[in-house]
Amino acid sequence: MPETVSRPRTDPGTPARARSWWGWGYTDAHPADAECLAMGALLPGTLAAPLPIPQVADLAIGRPALTPPSSLERLVTADPEARAAHAMGKAYRDVIRALRGRPGRIPDLVAHPGSDQDVADLLDWAGGHEVAVIPFGGGSSVVGGVEYRGDDHRAVLSLDLTSMDRVLEIDTASRSARIQAGALGPVLEDQLRPHGLTLRHFPQSFEFSTLGGWLATRAGGHYATVHTHIDDFVQSLRVVAPAATGASWRLPGSGAGPSPDRLFLGSEGALGVITEAWMRLQERPRHKASASVAFTDFGRALDAVRAVAQSDLAPANCRLLDPGEAALSGASRDGSSVLVLGFESATAPVGDRLATALDLARAHGGRGGAPTTDRDEPAPAGDAAVSAWRSAFLRMPYLRDGLARMGAVVETFETAATWDVLPALIDAVRTEVGAAALKATGHPATVNCRLTHVYPDGAAPYFTVAVAGRPGDEVEIWDEIKAVAGDVLHRHRATVTHHHAVGRDHRPGYDRQRPEPFALALRAAKDALDPHHVLNPGVLLD
Amino acid sequence: MPETVSRPRTDPGTPARARSWWGWGYTDAHPADAECLAMGALLPGTLAAPLPIPQVADLAIGRPALTPPSSLERLVTADPEARAAHAMGKAYRDVIRALRGRPGRIPDLVAHPGSDQDVADLLDWAGGHEVAVIPFGGGSSVVGGVEYRGDDHRAVLSLDLTSMDRVLEIDTASRSARIQAGALGPVLEDQLRPHGLTLRHFPQSFEFSTLGGWLATRAGGHYATVHTHIDDFVQSLRVVAPAATGASWRLPGSGAGPSPDRLFLGSEGALGVITEAWMRLQERPRHKASASVAFTDFGRALDAVRAVAQSDLAPANCRLLDPGEAALSGASRDGSSVLVLGFESATAPVGDRLATALDLARAHGGRGGAPTTDRDEPAPAGDAAVSAWRSAFLRMPYLRDGLARMGAVVETFETAATWDVLPALIDAVRTEVGAAALKATGHPATVNCRLTHVYPDGAAPYFTVAVAGRPGDEVEIWDEIKAVAGDVLHRHRATVTHHHAVGRDHRPGYDRQRPEPFALALRAAKDALDPHHVLNPGVLLD
Repeated sequence: MPETVSRPRTDPGTPARARSWWGWGYTDAHPADAECLAMGALLPGTLAAPLPIPQVADLAIGRPALTPPSSLERLVTADPEARAAHAMGKAYRDVIRALRGRPGRIPDLVAHPGSDQDVADLLDWAGGHEVAVIPFGGGSSVVGGVEYRGDDHRAVLSLDLTSMDRVLEIDTASRSARIQAGALGPVLEDQLRPHGLTLRHFPQSFEFSTLGGWLATRAGGHYATVHTHIDDFVQSLRVVAPAATGASWRLPGSGAGPSPDRLFLGSEGALGVITEAWMRLQERPRHKASASVAFTDFGRALDAVRAVAQSDLAPANCRLLDPGEAALSGASRDGSSVLVLGFESATAPVGDRLATALDLARAHGGRGGAPTTDRDEPAPAGDAAVSAWRSAFLRMPYLRDGLARMGAVVETFETAATWDVLPALIDAVRTEVGAAALKATGHPATVNCRLTHVYPDGAAPYFTVAVAGRPGDEVEIWDEIKAVAGDVLHRHRATVTHHHAVGRDHRPGYDRQRPEPFALALRAAKDALDPHHVLNPGVLLD
Repeated sequence: MPETVSRPRTDPGTPARARSWWGWGYTDAHPADAECLAMGALLPGTLAAPLPIPQVADLAIGRPALTPPSSLERLVTADPEARAAHAMGKAYRDVIRALRGRPGRIPDLVAHPGSDQDVADLLDWAGGHEVAVIPFGGGSSVVGGVEYRGDDHRAVLSLDLTSMDRVLEIDTASRSARIQAGALGPVLEDQLRPHGLTLRHFPQSFEFSTLGGWLATRAGGHYATVHTHIDDFVQSLRVVAPAATGASWRLPGSGAGPSPDRLFLGSEGALGVITEAWMRLQERPRHKASASVAFTDFGRALDAVRAVAQSDLAPANCRLLDPGEAALSGASRDGSSVLVLGFESATAPVGDRLATALDLARAHGGRGGAPTTDRDEPAPAGDAAVSAWRSAFLRMPYLRDGLARMGAVVETFETAATWDVLPALIDAVRTEVGAAALKATGHPATVNCRLTHVYPDGAAPYFTVAVAGRPGDEVEIWDEIKAVAGDVLHRHRATVTHHHAVGRDHRPGYDRQRPEPFALALRAAKDALDPHHVLNPGVLLD
């Protein structure tokens, strides 16, 4: 039977690093002004000096429009710093709005529930007082998922789940754990590590996002195939909705009606608040091997990736970087595309799998790729290109914010499509989004592409756009560029989002994509579960 | 871009084999009276002679209560043979009801729509005339999924989709095909074979069930891990509901809101009619290896299976047969449990994976298991125990019907549970279901168990119960036994069904298991999509 975990929640010896209210991550990791200037110099037309760091005091945050009854007082705060930090997510759009002094609507209150009952009580109060409730995990949304837009409510409450951050039970026989939804990535991994287990879900936002956020947005992890979507790790979910509370059973598989969990996975806080989940865990990998392969021709590189994706080799990493992306991350300087291949296993050595994948890559024109096999878990595996790419990956959002301070318009978007349309889709994005950025700014734009996740039937391309903005108009410029991107995706029937969620920013594309029978069902489910329409208004549905 | 498939629907040279209206499969495969007697002799207390084959003429089928307008006449028939064949599924409960002259309600009409428009027209008519519509694929339901119970409707229409049986398009680049929902297993595989591709979904009912049926019931295939649930092969679904028609986009992955397809997967015809789907295909495997291992101790065998399931070896087969099951299938005669391990790949030899799995099995007390590696696709792989088990598997439902003719109560049920409860669950089923069968009949019962599907966090046990009945009371006896089984599953929080669906027979267990937030959402979705409540009434919801 599962054992109860009694480990203390936090290590009292660790000093807390300060989180930025307006930009990505930790303030001590933000690029200094000099680094901002150096980056800006690479993008013609950016500012001569970085925009100043915005201050909460300048937001002139007033008193909340409404306060809760005394029974709920202990759960909420009207502190301006807390409210500012809960006003928006961490999209470029959010960062530049903060830098330009135009943040989204500041919530009236921030609540930190400690239990399901607290969540239910807060929802009850909100339902009776026209208070919008915005569920908030790590706040790393890049799609406008955690802010309020509109004015249909008397007040806005940000429901911060991070006080509910415990691993409550571990069942080592079934390799699963009951985890509260507010646990940030490192917080839950710290609690699993003593048991030799890992959730092994590593999105780029890992440090700054929560289990509940991953579940509510159907997050994609770092790995390219098989064990990467949070959906597949879910054994059961516990949901508190205004109209009902309940948990699905812990089951390894079930054919009893439509999956109850899959309706709440991706519901983005609009149907209910996910408060905890039993998650499937993995042993920590003991065998690793990786290598990178260079391609002169991007089209042939796509064919190589397809061959690997359609094998049963199941690479942990199978990331194709186009020439621009490869250059930016230091993986290649000669105009090649680079395919990063990595294998991991807790069961058996993976050298053979890597060798077979490399054979497939070479058969499609790949060069290089001496494999590095490393069986010691803590040591980073792989060659120089692999390591360069990894550190660039984690540093990326900080650099984006540095460029934003230089007045650049710089953001990413991602999608997925079947192999038959993928080459044309990538071409069209490069051409049309590049043209739109030039038209909107008068400056030449960088549009890079990498594949982050691959499937036998398609892949997920991830695009980065960077161009100097027109001072003060950055939000409008980005919206213009993004609208063109949305049209290209729609024309190719590529999804509006592969793993960034819908939020408010992707609503137009989502509405076009969602099949009508499901739209009717979702609307009906929303009305039944959230009859006063207080939960994350504007997300998924109006 | 996808190519259109223009292959003729059926091979005109193949004579059609007659399907049984009351029992499993083809009439020419039914056991003869002598074989029924021989089987009955193994089960003390069965009849001295087999019950006669039931005849449609004896059912005294009357005129339909309602007929459709002339515009729909070409789609429907009131032929008694057709109506009898659509009155029930193929559970033991159905077979014995037919044998005892107590079949379920005979539908008034059987429709064979040829297009989405036909389906929509029939639903329109039904909605306006209080006609219950029972979607019907191959009719192999073993849970009362395709019959009408109750009297809230003026007439009952069985909606047989098997005229919509074409593979319409194939996208070889993305290895996927657009397939109409009414295609039976062999019908769709015949159309895929020339392209070197396979859906590779082989439930026991493969010959007598359709793609649409698999999707609507979340069917499980023959394979033990990874590629076995039909859910995971779905790229997009097309649904015709009374209130709306639409298809999801073809996407290899998407995080745009809750999965629209997952709401209709498992909806058992209660929310809409699935008319076609883009399905993910696979290359035909070129490498196969299998072996069987014997265990003296069933508990240690469970540990061995868990070790294999928690590795990343991904066996195609990992079936554990308990001593009774192993003896029945001829895999072992000495009271051992037998673990059948099989590996398949289209990419690389699988001998190493089998060897590693055998090491794990032997570390837990497994004996034997000389691997047979066979790289030629057509040849059956494996040792004698493997082959014996395979042919017994396909013959099983026919034998069940032969035993039913001998007055036996013989049926299967399946579930899934996490590893921490699995040993206790299997023990409790053996003990309590055995006791219930003895109490209900006065005869000792056989209760056998095998694991059909395994997961890192649990497994799916499949139970077979056989006992001599009391002549005429077989249905009531089975219902009594099944109620006890349902209680044992519920007490262990094991799912009411792993891959047989809910239908009408599993409603009590399903209602207890379904979490309240999902129950509210499902009810609301039903009301929105099927406002006149004509679709498969009584399935999933009242």
